[in-house]
Amino acid sequence: MTGGSGATVSLVPELRLIPRQEFGRARELDDLRLLADMCRANALVAVKRAGSGHLGSSFSALDIVVHLLWQELNVAELGWEHPDRDVFFSSKGHDVPGLYAALHALGVIPTERLLRLRRLGGLDGHPDVGVPGIEANSGSLGMGLSKGRGMAWAKRFLGRGGRVVVMTGDGELQEGQNWEALASAFHQGIGNLWAIVDRNELQSDRPTEEILALGDLVEKLRAFGWHVETCDGHDHEALATAFADMRAVPEDIPKALVARTIKGRGVSFMEHPAALREGGGTYRWHAGAPDDEHFARAHAELVGRIRERLPDVALEQVPPLEEPRAVSLEGEPESGVGVRPVTDEYVAAAYGEELLELAGRRPDLVVLDADLASDCRIRPFELAQPERFVEVGIAEQDLVSMAAGLARQGLLPVVNSFASFLASRANEQIYNQASEGTKVVYALHYAGLIPAGPGKSHQSIRDVSLLAALPGMTIVQPANAAETRELLRWAVEDADENVAIRLAIGPSPRRIELPEGETPGRGAVLREGTDALLFAYGPVMLHEALSAAEALGARGESVQVVSMPWLNCVDSGWLAELVEPFAEIFVLEDHAPVGALGDMLRREVDGRALTVFGVEGWPACGTPPEALRFHGLDGSSLANRIALSLRARTAS
Amino acid sequence: MTGGSGATVSLVPELRLIPRQEFGRARELDDLRLLADMCRANALVAVKRAGSGHLGSSFSALDIVVHLLWQELNVAELGWEHPDRDVFFSSKGHDVPGLYAALHALGVIPTERLLRLRRLGGLDGHPDVGVPGIEANSGSLGMGLSKGRGMAWAKRFLGRGGRVVVMTGDGELQEGQNWEALASAFHQGIGNLWAIVDRNELQSDRPTEEILALGDLVEKLRAFGWHVETCDGHDHEALATAFADMRAVPEDIPKALVARTIKGRGVSFMEHPAALREGGGTYRWHAGAPDDEHFARAHAELVGRIRERLPDVALEQVPPLEEPRAVSLEGEPESGVGVRPVTDEYVAAAYGEELLELAGRRPDLVVLDADLASDCRIRPFELAQPERFVEVGIAEQDLVSMAAGLARQGLLPVVNSFASFLASRANEQIYNQASEGTKVVYALHYAGLIPAGPGKSHQSIRDVSLLAALPGMTIVQPANAAETRELLRWAVEDADENVAIRLAIGPSPRRIELPEGETPGRGAVLREGTDALLFAYGPVMLHEALSAAEALGARGESVQVVSMPWLNCVDSGWLAELVEPFAEIFVLEDHAPVGALGDMLRREVDGRALTVFGVEGWPACGTPPEALRFHGLDGSSLANRIALSLRARTAS
Repeated sequence: MTGGSGATVSLVPELRLIPRQEFGRARELDDLRLLADMCRANALVAVKRAGSGHLGSSFSALDIVVHLLWQELNVAELGWEHPDRDVFFSSKGHDVPGLYAALHALGVIPTERLLRLRRLGGLDGHPDVGVPGIEANSGSLGMGLSKGRGMAWAKRFLGRGGRVVVMTGDGELQEGQNWEALASAFHQGIGNLWAIVDRNELQSDRPTEEILALGDLVEKLRAFGWHVETCDGHDHEALATAFADMRAVPEDIPKALVARTIKGRGVSFMEHPAALREGGGTYRWHAGAPDDEHFARAHAELVGRIRERLPDVALEQVPPLEEPRAVSLEGEPESGVGVRPVTDEYVAAAYGEELLELAGRRPDLVVLDADLASDCRIRPFELAQPERFVEVGIAEQDLVSMAAGLARQGLLPVVNSFASFLASRANEQIYNQASEGTKVVYALHYAGLIPAGPGKSHQSIRDVSLLAALPGMTIVQPANAAETRELLRWAVEDADENVAIRLAIGPSPRRIELPEGETPGRGAVLREGTDALLFAYGPVMLHEALSAAEALGARGESVQVVSMPWLNCVDSGWLAELVEPFAEIFVLEDHAPVGALGDMLRREVDGRALTVFGVEGWPACGTPPEALRFHGLDGSSLANRIALSLRARTAS
Repeated sequence: MTGGSGATVSLVPELRLIPRQEFGRARELDDLRLLADMCRANALVAVKRAGSGHLGSSFSALDIVVHLLWQELNVAELGWEHPDRDVFFSSKGHDVPGLYAALHALGVIPTERLLRLRRLGGLDGHPDVGVPGIEANSGSLGMGLSKGRGMAWAKRFLGRGGRVVVMTGDGELQEGQNWEALASAFHQGIGNLWAIVDRNELQSDRPTEEILALGDLVEKLRAFGWHVETCDGHDHEALATAFADMRAVPEDIPKALVARTIKGRGVSFMEHPAALREGGGTYRWHAGAPDDEHFARAHAELVGRIRERLPDVALEQVPPLEEPRAVSLEGEPESGVGVRPVTDEYVAAAYGEELLELAGRRPDLVVLDADLASDCRIRPFELAQPERFVEVGIAEQDLVSMAAGLARQGLLPVVNSFASFLASRANEQIYNQASEGTKVVYALHYAGLIPAGPGKSHQSIRDVSLLAALPGMTIVQPANAAETRELLRWAVEDADENVAIRLAIGPSPRRIELPEGETPGRGAVLREGTDALLFAYGPVMLHEALSAAEALGARGESVQVVSMPWLNCVDSGWLAELVEPFAEIFVLEDHAPVGALGDMLRREVDGRALTVFGVEGWPACGTPPEALRFHGLDGSSLANRIALSLRARTAS
């Protein structure tokens, strides 16, 4: 974070990339397995450099990706702009570091850009069509078969050649939208649509069959009318046979390949199931970059195997990062484990601990998860209270409606997922639940702009607006661990109706000091001031607000900073008294400028001018400082924006 | 509508209800089929009196409902508050008039309330837990199996007896959430959950197998791990056998019955497939009340068959309606056909016509539907341009993501569904599509408070807020047919990015006169005034705004009324000039007071006080005048609210 106290600098070990021309030599050997390993090595370097990324599913998918791009599809030959090209994309999107490595090897993505994975202006953490070779935005799971079907329908309608090949995860198939799309593809006779399931048997951090069994997937897909092949997804001869068989199937029948793969394939200690056993039942390589030692071991193993076929393979030293990175970037939590803190302040961790404590007092409390137990810090609850923990898999709509049913029987469900998925995909289900007059607590994890590495599919900058017009829903965001505990207790024990708690997922950039005791609708003054009043919420933006106030203070401008955790309700008397002395009021949103705290305050201080700083446009992908600076929301930019506004006022 | 010009009064024919005690006599005959017919007769009367309701699926489901409540389940015996009761509810919810009739027969719903179907304080048009005997809110399709699973899980956890039996439609199974829930129920071993599919083979107005084939449903359900029975859903012996077989299945396996039924069962001319043939391929009895002649024929046929078993069955005259109804209430469009207009002003109709005209000029235009082609007035497009019409069935997420795929291939998709479903259930898919930088036109039908008969599942009072924080989305709502054409042309031909067009589904209460020519971001003055400025949008609220201004004018207060179709963007210069002379600004929302035009105008006229009138709390179910009056949004209430505000200002 910008100017973060306590942030230490981590030196990335020497990183070496296989240059593009080496892939040409490998191609001449006609060894797709070798090409896949070479892509694995480069994806590993890119992820290590980025400090985050999904290696496990990149590695399970890479033999298939390489087979498709180098052998089966026409796109590398026709180019990524040709209307008759075969379109390939990954619906799960987590595996994009592998795809980036392949696109780099094919000359589509320049080396400089591969080295800017999860950096501003580089390669998004999840697929984005702004990147060359990327055909669809994904990362929000379960949409790919519908989108692919649209593309395939359009190709048929427009008389264009080429297939549309969509890679899906296996855990991803838990999303109901897939089954909508599967039924429609058969009904509409979209035979130029191919689905390839990367059946690596692991989802976020546990086996698919434990989280929510797919059962006999082949039987299910056939019941939905699809032609289904299965094969070993790392065996290129088997892949060639399967694809040939699929090509021979009648034109109007959609085709699926269930490819049995190994998560982490290619690096022995990352391979399932051994890696799962070593992790004590948790798979450590789903997300996040390996530490230096594991990186070195993994890279050596891959390069060793590559040298068996290409003994003189070149490895080019990667230029150093232009700027040192704070450790907080190392482990941007996103379905990953083992995050190293900058401070010991994690609102998410406090949330998980308090939830477990509340369970002791509240026998009616039930916790629901949609395959994000590690990130949402509810794994301890799951282990301690298994009979009160419900895992529904990657299925947010089912998650919410099941909670609605629990609540109708008098239980108090606490529903967990990422804010971007829960508030958005399950929005109608939340409305329906609320309309029954029951109470549910919605924990919106990963709320706000930061971390910005995973990209716009995961950054939640609309969730407050999505819930704000819902009757009987209080939306809060705590600023620190203690407030997280207080607000969660309030939500569980005192609130009469639904509560949505927005939670930042990363470590707090600084410890926010707050007075004890929460009064609904009232915030707290963090720093006194006289020239202007600045509202903010959540650890990320409060840090930036305080940094701005500190910078302005040094320049002689006195800004009062108020932490306002109540995002859609306010104590009117408190507010009126608070704002009265100030000629200028500013609001800093960890959200779009529309539909959150600023709009609520405008309704309340009707007739007072108010300036809102929020995430304008699409949230930027990059490191926290990059993203904050891009949106003009870092402390330094904010100080300048506020100073400008104050000066304009003085001048007028 | 209140004070609507040109609204003629329709006299409802004599209606006669079978009183409750007659069901006791029928019960003694042990004839469930007779009981079902008696429920049908009373449901028919209730729907005729209401002027709307879903008879087709009420009738297909009624033998099963009666069999469950009178014979299979313990709930009638234990009562609807007992923790060990069997819980029964319908996920589709359309069939609730039949369930209401059964609950009335069992003494749960009083006669007075049955006669207030779709009226304020009566029985909601779709199930609501505020009504005795109703276990879950539905009407938003596809949530029932998840909710039922939650209830069943809770029963097991709490040690409560009783099963949870969820009735689903067959078309409803197109919603992906069902398949999430089916997989989870098996995985979680929720054997006290029963699903009963009312397999009547027709959805909104066409056969399920045409819209989106379910294929071999039994095979699909079995592939998802469920125990599946099938039987004739009108044969009570077969139902008894099926239920007995289901009871014998091991405790941890969820059970489904696919009940083959006949839509419209019990009234010869409503029965599928004959009725479909007579309707020329459209089934006329899905929604809406029959006209007097068809009502009389249907009632006579049912009573005739009832008299074969109960020759002296009593029929009690229903008291007349307390207030005459405008014809506009007769055919509140909601998956129904044959609506009779008050005026010839329908924004929805103009939309459908203009869309067809645009197709001639724009070969890239493709229209997508989610089984609401009649209501969305795109059936003419479907018939004229079948190759450019895509039917995806009841699957809004698939609908939007398929459109995203079409747009990625350069086509211009126009996506149709009801606002409450499209903006909400497909919200994350819309975000994902928008993030690809393509352009899609979203037609949000049935937007706003009115018609209010179907209840809160269908009334869309949050859709603007759900889309407002989305980058690159313009939201508009036309006031009349001509403006609908203009805005649609603008959306298709001129807009650079996504456009959402909110459309009122009913006939306009009055013709709104507008100057020709649309300037983005600018509204039009409909009535000049000097004391206050009142913004409104859409035919329903503009009518109320004008009525209010007229009433205030008669009292000497001069209110200027502005039609503002641009809900999230405004021409700042135009606005500043417009509001400058006025001391008081009011905004009338056809939406919750949060997240729509009022909030946008507050952002723009920052520092000016502004009073917003919107739909506070849950939207009321009832006739249009009832709902508008309940929320204080009818012309007369508005006039009083504005007058009070003006007086308070003068006094201060």
